[in-house]
Amino acid sequence: MSLRYSTVTFLSDYGRTDEFVGVVHSVIRALSPDVRVIDLTHDIAPYDVRAGGLTLARSAQYLSAGVVIAVVDPTVGSLRRPIAVEVGDGASVLVGPDNGLLAPAVAMVGGATRAVWLNDPDYHLEAAGPTFDGRDVFAPVAAHLCNGVPLEDVGELIDTGGLMPGLMPLTREEDGGLVCEVLWVDRYGNVQLNLDPDEIDPLGDNFEMQLPTGRRSARRAHTFTEIGTGSIGLIVDSYGLIALAANQSSAAEELGLVAGDGVTLKPLDEDASPDPTSVNIQLGRTRGG
Amino acid sequence: MSLRYSTVTFLSDYGRTDEFVGVVHSVIRALSPDVRVIDLTHDIAPYDVRAGGLTLARSAQYLSAGVVIAVVDPTVGSLRRPIAVEVGDGASVLVGPDNGLLAPAVAMVGGATRAVWLNDPDYHLEAAGPTFDGRDVFAPVAAHLCNGVPLEDVGELIDTGGLMPGLMPLTREEDGGLVCEVLWVDRYGNVQLNLDPDEIDPLGDNFEMQLPTGRRSARRAHTFTEIGTGSIGLIVDSYGLIALAANQSSAAEELGLVAGDGVTLKPLDEDASPDPTSVNIQLGRTRGG
Amino acid sequence: MSLRYSTVTFLSDYGRTDEFVGVVHSVIRALSPDVRVIDLTHDIAPYDVRAGGLTLARSAQYLSAGVVIAVVDPTVGSLRRPIAVEVGDGASVLVGPDNGLLAPAVAMVGGATRAVWLNDPDYHLEAAGPTFDGRDVFAPVAAHLCNGVPLEDVGELIDTGGLMPGLMPLTREEDGGLVCEVLWVDRYGNVQLNLDPDEIDPLGDNFEMQLPTGRRSARRAHTFTEIGTGSIGLIVDSYGLIALAANQSSAAEELGLVAGDGVTLKPLDEDASPDPTSVNIQLGRTRGG
Repeated sequence: MSLRYSTVTFLSDYGRTDEFVGVVHSVIRALSPDVRVIDLTHDIAPYDVRAGGLTLARSAQYLSAGVVIAVVDPTVGSLRRPIAVEVGDGASVLVGPDNGLLAPAVAMVGGATRAVWLNDPDYHLEAAGPTFDGRDVFAPVAAHLCNGVPLEDVGELIDTGGLMPGLMPLTREEDGGLVCEVLWVDRYGNVQLNLDPDEIDPLGDNFEMQLPTGRRSARRAHTFTEIGTGSIGLIVDSYGLIALAANQSSAAEELGLVAGDGVTLKPLDEDASPDPTSVNIQLGRTRGG
Repeated sequence: MSLRYSTVTFLSDYGRTDEFVGVVHSVIRALSPDVRVIDLTHDIAPYDVRAGGLTLARSAQYLSAGVVIAVVDPTVGSLRRPIAVEVGDGASVLVGPDNGLLAPAVAMVGGATRAVWLNDPDYHLEAAGPTFDGRDVFAPVAAHLCNGVPLEDVGELIDTGGLMPGLMPLTREEDGGLVCEVLWVDRYGNVQLNLDPDEIDPLGDNFEMQLPTGRRSARRAHTFTEIGTGSIGLIVDSYGLIALAANQSSAAEELGLVAGDGVTLKPLDEDASPDPTSVNIQLGRTRGG
Repeated sequence: MSLRYSTVTFLSDYGRTDEFVGVVHSVIRALSPDVRVIDLTHDIAPYDVRAGGLTLARSAQYLSAGVVIAVVDPTVGSLRRPIAVEVGDGASVLVGPDNGLLAPAVAMVGGATRAVWLNDPDYHLEAAGPTFDGRDVFAPVAAHLCNGVPLEDVGELIDTGGLMPGLMPLTREEDGGLVCEVLWVDRYGNVQLNLDPDEIDPLGDNFEMQLPTGRRSARRAHTFTEIGTGSIGLIVDSYGLIALAANQSSAAEELGLVAGDGVTLKPLDEDASPDPTSVNIQLGRTRGG
């Protein structure tokens, strides 16, 4: 059988301890045996729609064309609609709850071209209860879309303008500083900010950071190794945004930062005497700064 | 090569930190390259045969036809036999230790039609030690079964009546209450009971629960959202059993419940004044109850 | 399309919480759609090159021929070179950083036949930042190798003798004892030593162990069940090395051992009265000594 889409990419907050992820794989396998399923991650914190949306957005440009299933769904079974959002005039389709989860990724790849409300039960599994839409709605719909069922058949076409938007925080200037927000703390403790390198390139290499826990200095760096031990670097991360990083240790732990925290950056005069509490002094010594 | 079975579903208590799961995949890939392996979960608590058996039973109706490998095996290398259990006259085969792990799932799909003791070393890998049957026995046997080796060739046919049974707790009535047991606490803290909705449908919507930690009230609900904040709902979960649930928080944590705990439900007169320690009062207020 | 290699085996310290693993799968899928990717593990402790190298070495003999991607890379973006190491005259290729991570596995399968420095950017993805070589270098190179691009095309041939070696600790005799090192603690708390059974076979069944936390006795056993409750057994593990094990509990926890710790074994005279603090007395009682 020739497939309309041959890859399903799957993100959720299901975790891997219960059988949820495996059961979704099984449902897809039963309905569309040749489709390949790629697990993006299932360890989004329970109910954290924002983190799920950002993860999907970061990954979007690297995903294989096909169907994306995304499930972080605090109000499953009520309030929000299950939807499928087409992007690129059919290049890919994102399937999930209409709660803002899909929106950042959809925006990243050029916006929705069509959308449907998944309200045709013919393409769902008969459900014992209303709480596992991943298994009963999203997986079978994804499989049917892979098999070539047209988008307009799996539900009612809806206005793409009426979809729940995803909110991306913007930086702002305040008192000569740049107010940023922590988007993501990764496994290594790197702290991604909502900050494009262009925004700070004109401001020099040395910054003072105002954090919820106090003040620290930070310095632009190109690699982790270039960051002196005990210092905090501002690096361009692998997604092209500015991240606070330490060398082989967790910047997030050292700075006490979690996703959603505010960080204000102020440029430091290169000749200014560094903050005495700052480890930047060491950086100066070890790197001849 | 045409395969007798094209899907292997794999459950274990191996975790994902060590390489055990990946090595089992590799062994199958080497012996039967076109088989697809679906990981159900590998985070069954170490040695928890009961939890593994219940997980497999919950999933059974959704699994692709094929071979199932299940490994939770506290007495690997001694005492129990490695077995393969055929169900549905060959529709699927479950492979694992004969310690009750496979039994609930086998019962769910209609019982065993044949069984063999996996005692033919020709279908095993030569083992350095007797402790990794997943790699050395179950994976190669599963691959050979997929390739079309007949069941009776991989070991000695044994009486299906002699297999170790799995024990499923039944509810019982006591002092006007229904004594239930916690089967499973999922990632979100939902507490599945061994309780069919039919058993409490005639008893109204409001219940008092006797828990190891005290008394609480609970109310039937159809969705998580319908459960008021701070209240406990009795919902029909996605497997068709009654679960104790909270709205976007963990009922298990709030109630101090873990798998195996007892919960006694007593119907509350609708007009009775609610337990003063209960948050059900709030539910009444917020939902106009 | 006929593939030069059809399996990629993938090990890293990326964890599964972030999307790193899924993105690497996606990049391979996009460049070489028919390749199967097997995840060995991604839960190597961050930056633990030694643990990653040992995991790969333990698995090596079981892996499908093909390409291996291994990423534990504390100095990504600087200092070390990304490399591809051919083994078995092209039977397989290992791709990763030149920091000793690949070396133990390469040695296990007979040594490197050729190696290249992955310095041809034509086979990399264009990177936003220099910190995600798994996605930007190793995944695309692995996919191209699977597609048949010759090894010498993806980078500059380098001397296999100049690759960073992996260090494997050897046992040594000291004061009539055998000084060993803990290589690995697995999920079940089994403690693998760098000790071949041949080294202790002539020394009898009973040993005294000097541990960082004190002295304990241990006894050779063939299965976990054979180890009495509360006792420590010396078993031949599934990789053919000696491991300290307990029956259905964690030997590592009981003995306070972690990877890298030293353990000295001294043979005990079979007739000697056992250490009074030892639980071996119980073993004697329950098993008839």
